[in-house]
Formats: sequence, C-alpha cells, structure tokens
Amino acid sequence: MDTRAGWALHTDKYQITMLYAHWKNGTHLRRKAFDLYFRRLPFGNGFAVFAGLERVIRFLENLQFTEEDIAYLAEQEENYDPEFLDMLRQWRFTGDIYAMPEGTVVFPNEPLIRLEGTIMELQMIETALLNFVGFQTLIATKAARIRSIAPDETLMEFGTRRAQEVDAAIWGARAAYIGGFDATSNLKAGQMFGIPTRGTHSHAWVQDFDTELEAFRVFARAFPNQSVLLVDTYDTLRSGVPHAIQVGLELKEKGYKLAGIRLDSGDLAYLSKKARQMLDDAGLTDTQIVASSDLDETTLLNLKSQGARVDAWGVGTKLITAYDQPALGAVYKLVAREENGEWIPSIKISSNPEKVTTPCRKDVYRIIDQRTGKARADLITEVGHPPDESRPLVLFHPVHTYRRKKVKHFRAVNLLQPIFRQGERVYDLPSITAIRKHYETQRQLFWEEYLRLLNPEEFPVDLTQELWDKKQELLRKIYQEIREENGENGE
Amino acid sequence: MDTRAGWALHTDKYQITMLYAHWKNGTHLRRKAFDLYFRRLPFGNGFAVFAGLERVIRFLENLQFTEEDIAYLAEQEENYDPEFLDMLRQWRFTGDIYAMPEGTVVFPNEPLIRLEGTIMELQMIETALLNFVGFQTLIATKAARIRSIAPDETLMEFGTRRAQEVDAAIWGARAAYIGGFDATSNLKAGQMFGIPTRGTHSHAWVQDFDTELEAFRVFARAFPNQSVLLVDTYDTLRSGVPHAIQVGLELKEKGYKLAGIRLDSGDLAYLSKKARQMLDDAGLTDTQIVASSDLDETTLLNLKSQGARVDAWGVGTKLITAYDQPALGAVYKLVAREENGEWIPSIKISSNPEKVTTPCRKDVYRIIDQRTGKARADLITEVGHPPDESRPLVLFHPVHTYRRKKVKHFRAVNLLQPIFRQGERVYDLPSITAIRKHYETQRQLFWEEYLRLLNPEEFPVDLTQELWDKKQELLRKIYQEIREENGENGE
Repeated sequence: MDTRAGWALHTDKYQITMLYAHWKNGTHLRRKAFDLYFRRLPFGNGFAVFAGLERVIRFLENLQFTEEDIAYLAEQEENYDPEFLDMLRQWRFTGDIYAMPEGTVVFPNEPLIRLEGTIMELQMIETALLNFVGFQTLIATKAARIRSIAPDETLMEFGTRRAQEVDAAIWGARAAYIGGFDATSNLKAGQMFGIPTRGTHSHAWVQDFDTELEAFRVFARAFPNQSVLLVDTYDTLRSGVPHAIQVGLELKEKGYKLAGIRLDSGDLAYLSKKARQMLDDAGLTDTQIVASSDLDETTLLNLKSQGARVDAWGVGTKLITAYDQPALGAVYKLVAREENGEWIPSIKISSNPEKVTTPCRKDVYRIIDQRTGKARADLITEVGHPPDESRPLVLFHPVHTYRRKKVKHFRAVNLLQPIFRQGERVYDLPSITAIRKHYETQRQLFWEEYLRLLNPEEFPVDLTQELWDKKQELLRKIYQEIREENGENGE
Repeated sequence: MDTRAGWALHTDKYQITMLYAHWKNGTHLRRKAFDLYFRRLPFGNGFAVFAGLERVIRFLENLQFTEEDIAYLAEQEENYDPEFLDMLRQWRFTGDIYAMPEGTVVFPNEPLIRLEGTIMELQMIETALLNFVGFQTLIATKAARIRSIAPDETLMEFGTRRAQEVDAAIWGARAAYIGGFDATSNLKAGQMFGIPTRGTHSHAWVQDFDTELEAFRVFARAFPNQSVLLVDTYDTLRSGVPHAIQVGLELKEKGYKLAGIRLDSGDLAYLSKKARQMLDDAGLTDTQIVASSDLDETTLLNLKSQGARVDAWGVGTKLITAYDQPALGAVYKLVAREENGEWIPSIKISSNPEKVTTPCRKDVYRIIDQRTGKARADLITEVGHPPDESRPLVLFHPVHTYRRKKVKHFRAVNLLQPIFRQGERVYDLPSITAIRKHYETQRQLFWEEYLRLLNPEEFPVDLTQELWDKKQELLRKIYQEIREENGENGE
C-alpha cells in the first residue's frame, strides 16, 4: 500500500456505522480518549519491541476520503444522509496523539499510544492503527528473539515470497531491521526505508547451465568479489562445495575473493562444519558460510549448540509471518470521555478479568534505578500525576496486590511522547538507524532475566494507588447498577 | 499496495543479481519454463483452493521499472553497468503464462501456473508471484474449511485489525470470499472487489453513553431495521440481552425489527442458547444471533456440537492470518530450457526426496469418471501429450508405483488455461462471484472423503509413464555425473 490519500476506507464498516449513529445523534464531535495496547506477550517472550509508529503518522497525515470513497459509501444499503457524506468529505484528522518511540521495549497492558480527539476521528482510525502497530511490533519482537541467539553473525531477512502479501513483506522487512536484522532481500523495502539489501542466487541459476561449475564461473565473472554460491542444487559436499572451491581458487589467482557459499538444505550443522573444513583446507579461509532453510530462533539455538560454522543466516518464513504466533492481538479501548471540559474515566468489563480495561488518560513511566541504571518497573499513572522522584516509591502488583516493593533513588522516564497536537505533527521522525539504535539502548536497561527467550521473568507493570483505586471504584459502581436493575440486593 | 507501475522492485535482490550475471554472460534472453506449485497441503486439509491469479495478472500488466527504481539500482554496491539499467528501463513482460482458474480445487505438486519466457523476466517476477498466490490460496483454503462446518450460516470476515498489514487484510478478504465467506468488514475490500460488507458496533459505542440502554437506543434510532447490538460490554445475560430486548420491543412497536444481537466473549454455546430463549420469549424470534471471538473451524465445530444457536459468525484473526499455518510454502522451479528451438527438461535434486522437482513443460488433466461425474485423479502430462479419452487409462502413484488403477470412460479436463501469450493477456477475468461459484462447482467433483476436515483421503496426483520415465532418467544421469567427478564407480 502506498501512503497517499485514498485509504480512509481501510477500516471496519462498523466504524462508519457508529460514526453515522453518532452524527444522527449529534454526538460525533464529543471528545474521547483511547489507549492502544496489547494484553499478552508473543512467543513466550519477556518483552516486545514497539514498531509501526512512522506508518501510523504517515497514514494520519495523508488521511482523507476521496470522491471515489464517498461515492462508494453513498451506494451502501445504510442509505447515509448526503449531509453526513459531505461532512466526511471535509474531514481531516485533528486529534492529539502520544506514543512511545519506535524501538522502545514494551510490555502488556501499558498504553503504547494514547489518543485524544473526537469520537468520530478516533473510531475511524482504530482498525488501521491496530493493523499497522500489531504487525510491525510482532515482527520486530520476533527479529529481536532471533538476534539474541546470534549476536555476532549477519542476519538477513529473506521472507518476501512467503510473506502475507506485499505490505507484510515490506513493512515486515522494516520491523525486522528495527529488531536487529542487518539486511533484507526485498529491494522495495531497501528503496523505501534505506535498509541494506542482500542476495545470492537461486537453484534455477545453477540448473540453467550445462554444469554447476559453469554456472558458478559465470556468476563469479559478474561479481568477482561479491559472489555467494549456492551449493546444494545437486549434492552439497560432493558437487557444490568442490565446485565453489574450484571457482574460489580461480578467483584468488586473479586477485579476487569468493565472498561465500550458501547452504540451503540438509543438516546445516554437519554441512557447515564440513564445508568450513574443505574451504579452509583449500586456503579459502575468508570465504563465508551463509545458511538458510526454515530457520527461527529455536533452530538457530540448536544448530549453534551443535557447533555449526555459519557466518550469516538468511531467515524467511518463520520471521516474516511470525509463524508460531502470527498475530499480536493489539486492542484499542475507550478509557475516558470529556464532559464539560472534564475527563470522565470509562471502563469495559468482561467475564474474562484479563480483558477488563484500566480507565483514565494515562502516562507510562519507566522507573530506573539510579545505582544500577536498570529498569525496576513501568508505572502507569493518570496524566498529570508523575511519580515524585524525591521520595521512595511503593510499587505493587495490580492483581496480586500483596506483592509490593519500595524503590529509592530512581529516575522516572515518561515513555509517551507527543506526536500530534490538534492534528499537527509535533514529532520529528527519527531515522531507521536511530530507531534500531534506540532498541539496542533500551535493551541495556533490562536485566538478563527479563530478556531471555525461555521462561523470562515477568517485568512489573504497575498502577499507581490512585489509578488502582479509581478502577476498583468504577468496577464496584457498574456491578452495583447491574444488580439493582436485576432486583438483586446491594453489597 | 496499489496496482500501478512502481512495484518492479517488490522482488528479492538475487533476482536482479542473477539477471545481471546473465546479461553480462549474454544469456538473459534465453527461454525457460517454470512451474509455480506447492508441496504440502495446509491445515491438514485434503485440497487447496487456488486464488491470487487476478492479482498476478494486474501486477504483470502494470509491471515496469520507474526512473526512481533505476536510480535506486544505480546506487547499489554491485555497480551495475548503465547499459544494463537502460535495458531494465525498456523492459516489459513478454512471456506466456498458463494457469488454473481461481477457485479451482488443487493439490500438491501440480503446476498451478506454468510460465514460459526469457530467464530474465521469469526470474524477475518469481518473488511477487509466490507472494500473491501463496497468501490468497492459503486464506481461500482456510475459509473453505470454516465454510464446510457452517454450510447454512452467514460467515463474515472480521480480521482486518489482526491482519499482517494492509494488503493481507484486503486480499485476504477477497480470498475468504472466494473460499465461501459471505461478507467482509473491510470497506476498502468491499470497494475494490465488490464484496458485501458487514458490521455492527463496538464496546466503545456502549461505553460512550451513560447507560447501555441509551447506547442501544441511539444506535437503533440511526438503523431501525439494521441494528445488531453488541451485548457483552457489561454483563451479557443480566444487562446486554435484556437491554437489547427492551430496544427490540420498542422498535417492534414502531413497526421496525431488531436485526440482531452480537455475542463477543464468554461461553458462546451457553450464551447463545440462553439469549435465543430470552429473545424468543420476548417475541423477537426474527432477531438473529451473531457470534464472534477468536473463532476457527475447530471452535465452530465444537460450538455447533454443543447446540449453539448462532445465525452468523464473525471470524477474525484465525482466518485472516491462517493462524495455525501462516504460510503455504509455494515454490517456483525451473523445469525446462529452450535450446535451438527445443525444450530440454531440467531437474533440481535434493537430499530431501520431497523437494526433487518434476522436469518438463507440463499440463494437468483432471480425470473425471463419466458414470459418477466425480474426479478420480489429476494426471500430469508433458505438454502436447493429452491422455487418450478413447482408451482405458492406467494411473500409478508417483512414489509407491505399485499402487495402480485403471480408469475407463473418463473425461480429461486440462486445468491450465492460457492467460498471457507473448505478454498479451488472452484471458477474460471472471467476476469474483463467478470465481466463488467456480469453487462451489469444483467441490462437487470430489467425493466427501477428500473434502473432510480431519484425516482426508489423499487425492491421487499422478504422472504419465512417459513423464515418470524422463524424471528417473534425469536423476540417473545427474547422480552418474557426480559419481564420476568424485572418482567413484559407475552403476
């Protein structure tokens, strides 16, 4: 998808339906506040890497209904009033948005984006924002997991052909780069985002010539210092590697260097060790080994524990689709509504306690221990009620409230930054390199037990006492009303 | 993504790298044949529903390198020769393409698309074609599974917010419609493809008013005959359903009808039965029950077996991401190359026998028993060697060759139809309604044992004796060469 106008209809129909009902009721311009967040970490990871904000910003800056969109809505069975459609025609985003910078290490149930604006505009953009942020955050997190297993090797995102259509390939390549990958195979992503691109050749290249040796020679002639030869078209150790070595030696004689060989099937641990030995024995110690073939963090961990000698990994399907959990499940919830200039907290109850929302316009502070430089907890506060850094802070678990700890000598960093004010962007977009760097810096804030892949410790995300009390009070009030309506006794 | 020019770079870098090496070698215009197919069925299903062809066609019709693309390539470290870039600037697709119509019931290892053209153009488009066809075929197949469990209910695709970015939402909605869904929530998909759109309202709508009852009344005022009220914001049976009934009765009094209620959490079997009873007791027997909440074919099957009273299902995440297998794993393989006007078969060997390709330009015939009207097998032949309908046909399993059967009185239908000839489209695009209908008709060709969700029978996809022999001969020849090179004895 491109970022020009014409994507206002990339939304759920019910957003327009609700908008129309509000408009008929004269309530479409009332101001509300929404939070965008997720409830559970993906892949059993201990954190997620927030990504997708730039996509959100570009979308909102270009958002408007085209005449074609209006014509389409006019045909719908809802028979929308022409005045309503005219209002849509004029509409531009005019709300306030606060968000975490991309690359921030984030946790469940904390607002990643807080939005304030008319109910009309905030409903209209819900679907697209969840779509953008959910996907990029998911892929950046998956990439971060893979990177943590291969800190020193080159990591290449090779997933385009298996991605869920074009946008997933392109924005997924961007997210993978944020999460720590070094390059992508997708040229469009390279062009759009300035990500380094990498590629070798395919089996078809080899099949295309009478012999494998000829195929390698022709390729090496075109790229005398950049060739990575794919060695498994016929037989890796008996045909591919020997032919690659032959070409490598021919290149060496002319003062060039065979950049690498690529293994794409079979036992990558065994083959990489054997191939390394064969290359070294031939004096091609500089020639790298690239491996690809259905990789993810689990296969990488296993291959490395078996002593695989791989310099660069090409990761495809499992990364670009987040194969083991292909959706983050981000949500977008009403948390407050303005009445006579005052914000009234709002809550959504559920029979599933995990799905009960936390009311009020909120900020998220990362509580950093001054002595260690490490994060102790994230603290969710009401807007305008920052923690007092001059006094010890008592934190408690929002469900198991008896779990308390006191933090002294801390810095409290507000993670939500202003992005739009009254529809105007007030945020300078960082470069993708800066975003990638930001994630690396963020990682340093956390002890290893929160970062490990398997069974990480749960990082505390706590509410202030004040906010916790407001939530409980609202819950009591609503259940009280339901009981009264059903003629049951009060508490 | 839109379908205008400017997407030529949506490809893997190695395609351009190989192209350049061919160009340097003077071999970029040699003609080749490729097959696009998949090796394994997704979700344990017995078949797949082919989709994505229209996307492929539009892509190819609009494909060209823009000046911006050329400028980007010129900056790459490969330092491409300006003459090469000029050649790209002029390039348009000029190949021949044969493909199955969308909606065709398809099986592993049969070419869904056969391509003939210069190596240059066929490599260039590989990545995008796999990306398009893999995703839509996957989602259409998932949708078909869900439809088979709910033959009589309305099925709505509600997944946009959880989709893997925009294109996945939009093209996924199209694929779901082809696989049997009735509607999507995504308005853009509705606009682009003419798919019916549906939607209700969200929890935020309810929270937005002082009481649930007021929220329902305001909504019903805007849509007196089309309201589907979401009843689980506070308490489904004690608050939501009673309030919906109250509004339903108010509507009825004015001569309108409450269209439905929607359940979005909790025990959908229990709640739907209770709600149905409550609605019926109130005389609202026409009010439908819509259910949504992390549904797929397994939950549907279970809910229905527990007697759930649901008229329409909204299916989101699990469908739009193909949650239990988010990639089809389609492949694109060189099968023949033209030399002096003759097609020379080509093969790719693998240590994994499943990955060995079948050489030659091929057609796929569906062998239909004249007496029953049911398909007996798909038969893969060399192009130009159709099965002789006037004589009994002996079919055998391509791996377990002793498994043979003889078919008399059959029709052989060639599934691959000409789409492009020398770059010109020769195929009329069917409407999406026709494609959906085609899938329904295709289903009728198969006995129930191939269609069931769990442990379906494997539908036979066989090679002709002639083709099987050619494959074996090529395999023998290549292994012979490898042995000779390694100084091993011949056979």
